[in-house]
Amino acid sequence: MGGDHGADVVIPGAAVALTRHPDIRFLLFGDEAKIRGLLAQHPKLAAASTIVHTDVVVTMEDKPSQALRRGRKVSSMWKAIDAVRLGEADCAVSAGNTGALMAMAKVNLKTMEGISRPAIACLWPTLRGESVVLDVGASIGASAQHLVDMAVMGAAMARIVFDIETPKVGLLNVGVEEIKGVEEVKEAGATLRAADYAGLAYHGFVEGNDIGRGIVDVVVTEGFSGNIALKTAEGTVKQFAEFLRGAMRSSLMAKIGYLFARGAFRLLREKLDPGKSNGGVFLGLNGVVIKSHGGTDAEGFASAIDIGYDMVRYALLSRIEAGIKGRPQAASAGASPGEDGTQAAELQVSS
Amino acid sequence: MGGDHGADVVIPGAAVALTRHPDIRFLLFGDEAKIRGLLAQHPKLAAASTIVHTDVVVTMEDKPSQALRRGRKVSSMWKAIDAVRLGEADCAVSAGNTGALMAMAKVNLKTMEGISRPAIACLWPTLRGESVVLDVGASIGASAQHLVDMAVMGAAMARIVFDIETPKVGLLNVGVEEIKGVEEVKEAGATLRAADYAGLAYHGFVEGNDIGRGIVDVVVTEGFSGNIALKTAEGTVKQFAEFLRGAMRSSLMAKIGYLFARGAFRLLREKLDPGKSNGGVFLGLNGVVIKSHGGTDAEGFASAIDIGYDMVRYALLSRIEAGIKGRPQAASAGASPGEDGTQAAELQVSS
Repeated sequence: MGGDHGADVVIPGAAVALTRHPDIRFLLFGDEAKIRGLLAQHPKLAAASTIVHTDVVVTMEDKPSQALRRGRKVSSMWKAIDAVRLGEADCAVSAGNTGALMAMAKVNLKTMEGISRPAIACLWPTLRGESVVLDVGASIGASAQHLVDMAVMGAAMARIVFDIETPKVGLLNVGVEEIKGVEEVKEAGATLRAADYAGLAYHGFVEGNDIGRGIVDVVVTEGFSGNIALKTAEGTVKQFAEFLRGAMRSSLMAKIGYLFARGAFRLLREKLDPGKSNGGVFLGLNGVVIKSHGGTDAEGFASAIDIGYDMVRYALLSRIEAGIKGRPQAASAGASPGEDGTQAAELQVSS
Repeated sequence: MGGDHGADVVIPGAAVALTRHPDIRFLLFGDEAKIRGLLAQHPKLAAASTIVHTDVVVTMEDKPSQALRRGRKVSSMWKAIDAVRLGEADCAVSAGNTGALMAMAKVNLKTMEGISRPAIACLWPTLRGESVVLDVGASIGASAQHLVDMAVMGAAMARIVFDIETPKVGLLNVGVEEIKGVEEVKEAGATLRAADYAGLAYHGFVEGNDIGRGIVDVVVTEGFSGNIALKTAEGTVKQFAEFLRGAMRSSLMAKIGYLFARGAFRLLREKLDPGKSNGGVFLGLNGVVIKSHGGTDAEGFASAIDIGYDMVRYALLSRIEAGIKGRPQAASAGASPGEDGTQAAELQVSS
């Protein structure tokens, strides 16, 4: 029921994902009449689906605390996550309120043993393909150990998504010299560099402009700067597209040029379309939860389901568990700034 | 002598700026023979310039501490800043090493009374024109009071650059609801909202994607996230341009389209060209110092001189001084995290 368009995007999205992965079975949580109406147009999906009716919907405006108070046990969001906890579902996918989804997932699924806080990872389009970037909005601030944990979790995800054995991992910083940056980032870098850890290849520090260059497979940062980087990039793409539109209307020659080049522009739009790499992956929880962009279309929601499918099929959780067992340990294992369940839960990647 | 191209860009850049502002007089610090050779092609500039010879150059690779040790009193960078301190120059413009420039400017000019730390402000191209964004790399972390001070300083700069009386100011955060974000940002927001301060119109929180939309005139954030936002946007523009080039070569039709539309593409490049709004302004010091992009061309360096010219002509320093006197006071006036001259000096916006 979540996201800007609710079941009108979720149901057609599930239908698209089913054509790609015919072995998926769906549990659809929400308004039964509404869902049943939409399923009428998708008989194959209807045959692969079970509807679990609920009246209570977490809205995009609900604060995480409100969502928990009002939606615990009864909302479609809670029930979808609960199905993962109970083993009835392998994965929960939602286009709903990110802060509420993370709060409910934390309360219900709990963080994995050895992990202090979950993170949200996204797939970032780059010049070389895609990179995993985390944390883009689960919590503010990160201790050195949390950054190391995110490197390990991000690498586990990258191993699945990119099908590579030893992903290259970089720590986001404000300069490439080892001397620069905040203490936690420096310590995490030193820990990763010194560690005899086979699960990833530590590249060193990367800067904001390196993300889009795709020089590493995984970019690790705390949630405040990660969220600002992600949204700034989204905003810049929109701005560039807007300028491009304006430029193409600026003269008759440009308009004629556009007519010839419109196939190429379509290609470009697809390459930068957030719907194509749509889906934030919650990492560090005892269950797979995928956040789809709230404003996405059916194709974008299907991408989010695809990501969830791969995370389950290729055993994300046991890969993270294995990674956590042998992970490097930062010298200062102290609590990180802002380590606080409430605050973490109040964050939102995007609506 | 600084930047990637040294005097070869600085001298032609000064010549361009002089055509726009014939009342500028230049003090040129560096290798006299080299400068004299270049001035031969610019007789008007030669007539408006005094050369101050020095052999010592701060390189782009020098760490701020190295630059201070080796270049204090003797380097072209130090001497240019010193001319501002002595009142011989109204403004210093350099394409050199940002970290070294800031370290020398702090040591030599000192921060203004009432200002704990300087900030670097840049002009960010937006859908509506430009916005002032700060801090993009002077120091890591910021107390509520430092954020308030940056709002006041950024507004003073925006008043000059955009010629508006009451600039709209936003605080960069990870969500628009008042409840979200780090404590310092929340407190700064509450202070600015409650204050009866005529120098700016406090808009509230803005997110990363709001910067490019230009919904406020001034975006305030601490240097770590500001630097990451700036570099991520720069990287995204480059990435988009690369994709666009690829798309324009993807088919014969696209190539023909490009031929018709190339005028429009030139327009687009100019709109997004960092050279067009090139120049980081150091705010909070007892003197005007402008950092030009290290890799810029003559036109870009001239833009940096233009900005410095306007800052002097329209009295940036006394505007900031006046603003600081009546500025709002945050309740917790404690030291901010990472408040430390060394760390601040180690930061670099871009080389």
